[in-house]
Amino acid sequence: MIEDRVGAFVPGPRAEIAPHGEGALDGFTFAVKDLFDIAGFPTSYGNPDWARTHPPAAATAPCVLALLEAGACLVGKTKTVELAYGLTGENVWHGTPLNPAAPDRFPGGSSCGSAAAVGEGLVDFALGSDTGGSVRIPASYCGTFGIRPSWGAVSLAGACGLGPSFDTAGWFAGRASVLRQVGEVLLPEDTAPGASLGPLLKPQAAWTNADPAVAVALQPAFEALQDLVGGQVRIEGAPGLLLDTYEHFRCAQAQEAWATLGTWIEATQPAFGPGVGERFAAARAMDPARAAAARAFRHRFSARLRALLAGGAVMAFPTSPMPAPLLTASAAEQNAARERSMGVTAFAGLAGLPEVTIPAARVGGAPVGLSLVAAPGRDRALLALAERVGSALRLAA
Amino acid sequence: MIEDRVGAFVPGPRAEIAPHGEGALDGFTFAVKDLFDIAGFPTSYGNPDWARTHPPAAATAPCVLALLEAGACLVGKTKTVELAYGLTGENVWHGTPLNPAAPDRFPGGSSCGSAAAVGEGLVDFALGSDTGGSVRIPASYCGTFGIRPSWGAVSLAGACGLGPSFDTAGWFAGRASVLRQVGEVLLPEDTAPGASLGPLLKPQAAWTNADPAVAVALQPAFEALQDLVGGQVRIEGAPGLLLDTYEHFRCAQAQEAWATLGTWIEATQPAFGPGVGERFAAARAMDPARAAAARAFRHRFSARLRALLAGGAVMAFPTSPMPAPLLTASAAEQNAARERSMGVTAFAGLAGLPEVTIPAARVGGAPVGLSLVAAPGRDRALLALAERVGSALRLAA
Repeated sequence: MIEDRVGAFVPGPRAEIAPHGEGALDGFTFAVKDLFDIAGFPTSYGNPDWARTHPPAAATAPCVLALLEAGACLVGKTKTVELAYGLTGENVWHGTPLNPAAPDRFPGGSSCGSAAAVGEGLVDFALGSDTGGSVRIPASYCGTFGIRPSWGAVSLAGACGLGPSFDTAGWFAGRASVLRQVGEVLLPEDTAPGASLGPLLKPQAAWTNADPAVAVALQPAFEALQDLVGGQVRIEGAPGLLLDTYEHFRCAQAQEAWATLGTWIEATQPAFGPGVGERFAAARAMDPARAAAARAFRHRFSARLRALLAGGAVMAFPTSPMPAPLLTASAAEQNAARERSMGVTAFAGLAGLPEVTIPAARVGGAPVGLSLVAAPGRDRALLALAERVGSALRLAA
Repeated sequence: MIEDRVGAFVPGPRAEIAPHGEGALDGFTFAVKDLFDIAGFPTSYGNPDWARTHPPAAATAPCVLALLEAGACLVGKTKTVELAYGLTGENVWHGTPLNPAAPDRFPGGSSCGSAAAVGEGLVDFALGSDTGGSVRIPASYCGTFGIRPSWGAVSLAGACGLGPSFDTAGWFAGRASVLRQVGEVLLPEDTAPGASLGPLLKPQAAWTNADPAVAVALQPAFEALQDLVGGQVRIEGAPGLLLDTYEHFRCAQAQEAWATLGTWIEATQPAFGPGVGERFAAARAMDPARAAAARAFRHRFSARLRALLAGGAVMAFPTSPMPAPLLTASAAEQNAARERSMGVTAFAGLAGLPEVTIPAARVGGAPVGLSLVAAPGRDRALLALAERVGSALRLAA
């Protein structure tokens, strides 16, 4: 059994499953966020009351089966923020995993255990889920590669939901080649196969939103990407765009979160750690007219972004505007980080776009990621491009 | 309260909700399949043990809210096949709805109550869900318009799942214009707006699969479509294609169904009516290697179909190879109808394509539908084309 040096795995018997076959993932070990079902094990969804009110899983999620069938070995289930509704990675019930790359900082969430396990090198890759940034943010914070695939590209059968029209199954890896190889097992062929990606788009709003030190630190990686892709086009964003985008994302997601989990919450009255209960209370109280406006914004915003990217263009920007918050950050500071981050993670979330984050730099000793985003159905091309950027930056291949 | 002349609504207090606003659906009444949540009402999912083990819904599904906000008035929740896992429309607990267009025949399912309510004219439109044909088949059987949208186009937040990578929210209407108007509320803009659809593709396998009388009866509608779209291209299919397609669909869906519902079934040991329990038992026993082969087939098949349709082409074929089975049909006859039907409904199911069915003809006094299928993201164009076909056939507009 792997020694859990960073508190990445959920308490209780370790879910260890040998490969079901041989294939592209022979010899790799992996872990799975504890919102995917593994037959015979409880799915805690990060919350003791959830675990108490749900029986152990009768079946294993098909996406996990696909990994086992391709030769990978499951070594455990990893911690998640309760009901996947938070970005710091804190879990007061199971203990917050250590950020292996910056132990005085949060690991990021909600897929905190998967990011920590990969960051520490306990496994070759780990499954997570990403609704509003839950793979991308912890990957950036822990200095790993990570992908949120095109919405719908990987089946979420056997996984707990938060906001179905936003939810995706994503994954982390320490090496870009492994991130790609997992994609070759889980993803369908690209809709536009063989198409090379370009031109490179630089959404100014997402860069000016970042801490200046982050923007500066990621500049070499952006230039390396530019060398690979060619031509760069600046995309200007109206002032206030990101705040608007965040607020619309928050409202649309909250309405879906309450529609998905409100019945269980009302019936169970679960105990929640800091922040999570408050977010569900806000979701419960969401003005339907506000959520309707958010859905309408989403349709327009998504159409505009998809049109920009339709020909193969790729956007690049800081995955998170800052390194991981310090463990000593106040609730207000955590919330400010959340709002600033989600104005940018909402791009892919609202429009169903694939996004890959590359551990491209460090700021004050803590990792920061560079994100590449393409049109839906170009996930494999995006993974291949991320691997080339990783090579150019001499990251572990 | 609307008199339920065909047994379309679920037993218990009728879910009646006044419009939440004014808009494109002012003056329309609608009903909702009882697998979508309506706040304050139980969601039975067609099964008494499900109703018993789940509290009343705390929230209303966002897609239902969108209809209420657009001015439509909800008049009740409609019956569904248990856990949406069946195509005849039979429900031994709630009573099988009458097929208003052919009272000696099954109404079709799983969205049986919604089809019956629209077929009888109790409501202007009704929400259903479609995983493997659960809107298209009952629409064809009851002589209504119906749509299964592009997979993912309408959020399923607040809806019970069966096979998440196949599940869609669809709807029925007695008039093509209403089918389209509902789409204008629920659907995003088409990915390729303004593009007219064409050429017309005729998949031979789906036509030879149909009863000769059905193919003959639908010929005038096909010709009317041809006049509107232009050029016709025959798509030859290898013998056995449909049986293969059915079998792969069945296995991939069954694996997701067990991953989604197996934990509840194992813990609850619910009583099921004829057929449903057998299908879940088969899902439970599914050989994972068989399901893996089905997922691989799905990727290839989907890529091929999407490539055929990428430029705007539209396929047309009989929605169901036969009219609704007689209520006296044996279990073996029902099963044979199921297999033959799903070899064709699996096209859209496997590839995530939008499909609209038009009540284009009658055979032996019973309705049969003509289906139009396009590439994902062309739902609005498809609804507009269906309306033009309806006009050409002088169906109620």
